[in-house]
Amino acid sequence: MPRVSQDHLDARRRQILDGSRVCFARYGYEGATVRRLEEATGLSRGAIFHHFRDKESLFLALAEEDAARMADVVAAQGLVQVMRDLLSGAGEQPAEWLATRLEVSRRLRTDPEFRARWAERSQLLTQATKLRLQRKLEAGNLRDDVDVDVLTSYLELVLEGLVSHLAMGLPADDLGPVLDLVEESVRHQRVRASLEA
Amino acid sequence: MPRVSQDHLDARRRQILDGSRVCFARYGYEGATVRRLEEATGLSRGAIFHHFRDKESLFLALAEEDAARMADVVAAQGLVQVMRDLLSGAGEQPAEWLATRLEVSRRLRTDPEFRARWAERSQLLTQATKLRLQRKLEAGNLRDDVDVDVLTSYLELVLEGLVSHLAMGLPADDLGPVLDLVEESVRHQRVRASLEA
Repeated sequence: MPRVSQDHLDARRRQILDGSRVCFARYGYEGATVRRLEEATGLSRGAIFHHFRDKESLFLALAEEDAARMADVVAAQGLVQVMRDLLSGAGEQPAEWLATRLEVSRRLRTDPEFRARWAERSQLLTQATKLRLQRKLEAGNLRDDVDVDVLTSYLELVLEGLVSHLAMGLPADDLGPVLDLVEESVRHQRVRASLEA
Repeated sequence: MPRVSQDHLDARRRQILDGSRVCFARYGYEGATVRRLEEATGLSRGAIFHHFRDKESLFLALAEEDAARMADVVAAQGLVQVMRDLLSGAGEQPAEWLATRLEVSRRLRTDPEFRARWAERSQLLTQATKLRLQRKLEAGNLRDDVDVDVLTSYLELVLEGLVSHLAMGLPADDLGPVLDLVEESVRHQRVRASLEA
């Protein structure tokens, strides 16, 4: 068996993740058969499952990657920006991102075991949101009459609603002003008052 | 063939709706087979489909009944109260209500034909919400710097998020203050200011 470099292993892993992301987005979790994953990645099942224990581990790796990417956007621009990206389709790979998220939502509903495996990963986004809000609070830009935990839950609830809305194929072209309202409602009262004046 | 009174027909229709509601909630739309619907209603398939053209029509009748019931709560107490009922489980048949709603969400995602049939029915709730907000605006209790259509979409988006949240089995015991925030964010600035003072 030939020795392979770490670079080569990383590239392979990347190739599997990118291909399978498209495959999951198109066929859903159950529909993404091993044969289709082979086609989408251009690799054999042996190669794929050398890198990932099973299909669920592969899917969780994708979902985790998305959560990390979202957490980066949250840290820099806030959770409302994640929603704006989702709405405009201007974000990086928005379609696949949404598809993975929907698949996560669906499996959370139907699969208690998956729920447990996902719980720790979902903390990533919550923590990033909470940290961002905490910083805005310290800078005097966040309302201080409502607990940061409540504001975090609020923003996450709206995100979940947006994901569900888009998933149901409902019209989304009028949701920009709704997100403005959401953003405004977590701001400091003083900031809100000056904007409304 | 014996003649049956209108009362008798209405009672039968009621019996079918109540039984099939429980059946759909337990098994989901696909899992609610005709045999199970017979068991749950205590009636034969002949009797059931004398009243409803097919399973989809039966399901839509239930969904419509829920939408009408929600619209009543909205008219009297607002959409945030619908969410509070959903949260507390204090509403009338909350579990079945949620189950039907989830099934609607799922089929909207996967079935374009169903989407068309549902579109007109879903207007009921939107209209009730809009009307209620319009009245609050006229009474001076609603913020007047954001369009009523935007406020309506905002509340519906949060409701969708809440439904999805509950469906995923995520903890909901900390969402009361989140709904307070949602309710506050549509109030008139003057009212908000006095509450925050």
